[in-house]
Amino acid sequence: MRTFFLAFFLLFSASLLAQTSKVFDNLSVSSKILNMERKYAIYLPPGYETSERSYPVLYLLHGAGDDQTGWVQFGEVQLMADKAIAEGMATAMIIVMPDANTGRRGYFNSIKGDWLYEDFFFNELMPYIEKTYRIKGEKRFRAIAGLSMGGGGTFMYALHHPELFSSACPLSAATGPVSPADARSYFERWGDTGATDTEIEAYYRQHSALSLIENMPDDRKKAVRWYIDCGDDDFLYEGNSLVHIAMRKKEIPHEFRIRQGGHSWTYWRESLPAVLSFISDAFHQY
Amino acid sequence: MRTFFLAFFLLFSASLLAQTSKVFDNLSVSSKILNMERKYAIYLPPGYETSERSYPVLYLLHGAGDDQTGWVQFGEVQLMADKAIAEGMATAMIIVMPDANTGRRGYFNSIKGDWLYEDFFFNELMPYIEKTYRIKGEKRFRAIAGLSMGGGGTFMYALHHPELFSSACPLSAATGPVSPADARSYFERWGDTGATDTEIEAYYRQHSALSLIENMPDDRKKAVRWYIDCGDDDFLYEGNSLVHIAMRKKEIPHEFRIRQGGHSWTYWRESLPAVLSFISDAFHQY
Amino acid sequence: MRTFFLAFFLLFSASLLAQTSKVFDNLSVSSKILNMERKYAIYLPPGYETSERSYPVLYLLHGAGDDQTGWVQFGEVQLMADKAIAEGMATAMIIVMPDANTGRRGYFNSIKGDWLYEDFFFNELMPYIEKTYRIKGEKRFRAIAGLSMGGGGTFMYALHHPELFSSACPLSAATGPVSPADARSYFERWGDTGATDTEIEAYYRQHSALSLIENMPDDRKKAVRWYIDCGDDDFLYEGNSLVHIAMRKKEIPHEFRIRQGGHSWTYWRESLPAVLSFISDAFHQY
Amino acid sequence: MRTFFLAFFLLFSASLLAQTSKVFDNLSVSSKILNMERKYAIYLPPGYETSERSYPVLYLLHGAGDDQTGWVQFGEVQLMADKAIAEGMATAMIIVMPDANTGRRGYFNSIKGDWLYEDFFFNELMPYIEKTYRIKGEKRFRAIAGLSMGGGGTFMYALHHPELFSSACPLSAATGPVSPADARSYFERWGDTGATDTEIEAYYRQHSALSLIENMPDDRKKAVRWYIDCGDDDFLYEGNSLVHIAMRKKEIPHEFRIRQGGHSWTYWRESLPAVLSFISDAFHQY
Repeated sequence: MRTFFLAFFLLFSASLLAQTSKVFDNLSVSSKILNMERKYAIYLPPGYETSERSYPVLYLLHGAGDDQTGWVQFGEVQLMADKAIAEGMATAMIIVMPDANTGRRGYFNSIKGDWLYEDFFFNELMPYIEKTYRIKGEKRFRAIAGLSMGGGGTFMYALHHPELFSSACPLSAATGPVSPADARSYFERWGDTGATDTEIEAYYRQHSALSLIENMPDDRKKAVRWYIDCGDDDFLYEGNSLVHIAMRKKEIPHEFRIRQGGHSWTYWRESLPAVLSFISDAFHQY
Repeated sequence: MRTFFLAFFLLFSASLLAQTSKVFDNLSVSSKILNMERKYAIYLPPGYETSERSYPVLYLLHGAGDDQTGWVQFGEVQLMADKAIAEGMATAMIIVMPDANTGRRGYFNSIKGDWLYEDFFFNELMPYIEKTYRIKGEKRFRAIAGLSMGGGGTFMYALHHPELFSSACPLSAATGPVSPADARSYFERWGDTGATDTEIEAYYRQHSALSLIENMPDDRKKAVRWYIDCGDDDFLYEGNSLVHIAMRKKEIPHEFRIRQGGHSWTYWRESLPAVLSFISDAFHQY
Repeated sequence: MRTFFLAFFLLFSASLLAQTSKVFDNLSVSSKILNMERKYAIYLPPGYETSERSYPVLYLLHGAGDDQTGWVQFGEVQLMADKAIAEGMATAMIIVMPDANTGRRGYFNSIKGDWLYEDFFFNELMPYIEKTYRIKGEKRFRAIAGLSMGGGGTFMYALHHPELFSSACPLSAATGPVSPADARSYFERWGDTGATDTEIEAYYRQHSALSLIENMPDDRKKAVRWYIDCGDDDFLYEGNSLVHIAMRKKEIPHEFRIRQGGHSWTYWRESLPAVLSFISDAFHQY
Repeated sequence: MRTFFLAFFLLFSASLLAQTSKVFDNLSVSSKILNMERKYAIYLPPGYETSERSYPVLYLLHGAGDDQTGWVQFGEVQLMADKAIAEGMATAMIIVMPDANTGRRGYFNSIKGDWLYEDFFFNELMPYIEKTYRIKGEKRFRAIAGLSMGGGGTFMYALHHPELFSSACPLSAATGPVSPADARSYFERWGDTGATDTEIEAYYRQHSALSLIENMPDDRKKAVRWYIDCGDDDFLYEGNSLVHIAMRKKEIPHEFRIRQGGHSWTYWRESLPAVLSFISDAFHQY
């Protein structure tokens, strides 16, 4: 009998280790647009290496001050995703975490055109990733999420390209300037003082979540499934509360949560399982 | 051991029935101000009848369309409070549920003075209750909570009388008019068309949560502990979100929650344990 | 410390015993209509004796061969209801189990008028019960359920009086004759051979669930919430499956379940918690 | 003890990866009958690659609108089967998911003979699969299941070839035309208008679950173990309810379930574990 259990133990251990997910946190892709190598981290779900099937993909954006390793190290992305998949709360998916910090910080194109990260994201990173890994290329199998600055990236990317993402989950998001004057003050804080009013105005229209929501055409209002979450002690409470009001008034379907907490990894680790479950609902095609 | 248990059983069997909580849902108090009998329901915690101690009190207000039985039947107040007390999440307390529906609906004084419910509440009901039951009369042992119209009552009563309540928990609250013109439109909907601008203005200043928050003197900002909760699908989303923003800007400490759900008893039954626990923290910690 | 726990244990034990529900299974009510005493059993929820509040009511009908003690003895109604209430799956309610077996069996009025049980139920039993116990008298707080012959009673009572019941839950129900000829064969089996075609036809129209469903006026289709459940091995499979089809075609909202099992108390004990939870949803006013 | 574990780790690390299950979702087989390559997906259970044993097989059919990847992506077949096997609810088996969508949709032979999918299935796909993979070729180790259109395929294949399948599990199944006239209306909807009455009649007899059940010879009634499941909100409620009645009248043993739900992947993901367990009872118990 003991031998039997021993054999069972060995098979079971073997199976467990073999089924494990993998995380690489120091890969890179060559960018002509940014004229440099750009880092990314990637989570490959249990079974990726041995199966032949293809997978949905989540682009998961870090906040200011972190890089591609933020969600891996502080967000415990592997533990959280493995658990959510094992419990049937989320479907097996690939999670891509690009670096928007090294060299210069930010997910958007600058006015002067010396930092075209958004172009890099859509024209180089996404095509490279979806060609290199076994990823389903259709909108319904692609989601985006992120925290703080990466929540801002999530808002703007999904508002600019609703044809590419089935779900978007901005967490404790920077929702962008509330007026052109506010946008100018952003630039001045970044030492970028030479922009014309026209440039500022154009930038504002593309980088204010409120402005993009208010000007959204009716036929786009159900294009993306939204899950928006921001702690009641977070310093970004106002923008997120106003986005909730604006989306309700505009009748844009969205989930909105305010939980106990501030701008912290404790909050985001608690958000992540709900995000993985929410975006899987689109992958599952309920 | 058997003798031991038997002895206890015999010794204490006489007091067994007294240990249970009690709910009366059809009591009344005579009001000179309103010139009528007013109904109320009351929850007396386990042990109330046999102990000699006094208890903290929660005034728990129903919404429009319900009466004093609403929290008893739909809110399962007895089950919820018994459970929260048994699990140590809440301290034993008395819960008073007045009827603000019979005859005429509403928690506030009318402009014309023909419905002075708020006067009744503070000058007749509260004194009667706190004299009739063994209730601790100090602020720190008194809390107020309510839903919808009763959430509005909670806001206004605690904003008018911060010296009386240690905690206030408006749930899915009607936060009141957003301007004097809005207040006038309320009155007109109620068929109350003769009010002067001065009267409307005065009413507005007293019955708009936003106005009361914005004009709150600095030395009152920590007078009441707030727990505010409203579902992301609730039709009252805007007022509550704006209260959150106004309180944050004014630096009034408060807990704020937006959970999944609408304007429903399912939502409020889920809120109630957190409310009982939150208000108990004031009872406990002073 | 040990003394502390001992005291706690005693208080807790006391509280548990005092909060217990009560079942009486041999009460009776005097019937002029039936010219006899009629038995009933009743379940009073935890807290009934010490609270002063009023409660919703469920009329729970036994099957042929049982009497008012069937649900108590074989259905474990006390255990099931206590558990459902404690877990928050059901609201505290009173459960009334009348005897439709003693003397003569059946829930309906006979053609000859020598057994007017349905008249007794609505004109004597219900008024007596709702006056004697603290029961809320409104439709939304009244439900009916039953098994086999009592499932037939549930169908007919709720189809005859949709103004009286918010929910109806026929379990493994006898759905009644499928044609007047079938109705006549019922009577002949019961030794009732003298009925005219007109009498049979009238009886049929009132005691066939299919006929009552097919002839239901549109404005009654949402009057009652239905939960219908019948095992895949039950001999009454056909009538229940046809009721499901008829209700779907007629667009009468209903829950329908076929689970593993036959015409047995094992099946009904598994049904009961779902029934208690389902009817509580109406009491709760979701 | 540490040495003990270390030894195991070293000894068995080489075979770790082989213990995982595998899913291929883009394989194909060449069909002379259909004159094209036909896609299929396959699940190989944990241990398939390193063991030398052979396995039972389940043919798992997708619904209209999906293809061979449906059960992989939306049905989470790998997660579900791995879990059911690990928990001992199901035995290790191979699951084959053929594509009946590409080029032309459907599991049956057309009247005109221009789409002989059923011939392909039995004469080309099944022999190819059972030769290519280590599959036990006996009836008791072969099962069939499917959803919607694939539930229809499951009914017809198992009713046509009870000598080939020990278990059949139609989920939310299309049960086929209810009369020859109904069959003709199917063809006309598909633009197939030239069929003679004799052809239609023959087609009807072979593709109506009700007709096949009613005409089943007595000695075949226990040939296949049936597990039939359809949600109470499914638009296919009528055919499945009538099949239940017909099988009961004909005394064909079968499990029948109606659970809460509609025609959705949520429903089918909940069905799948029961299906895997049910068919394993045949694999296990002979």
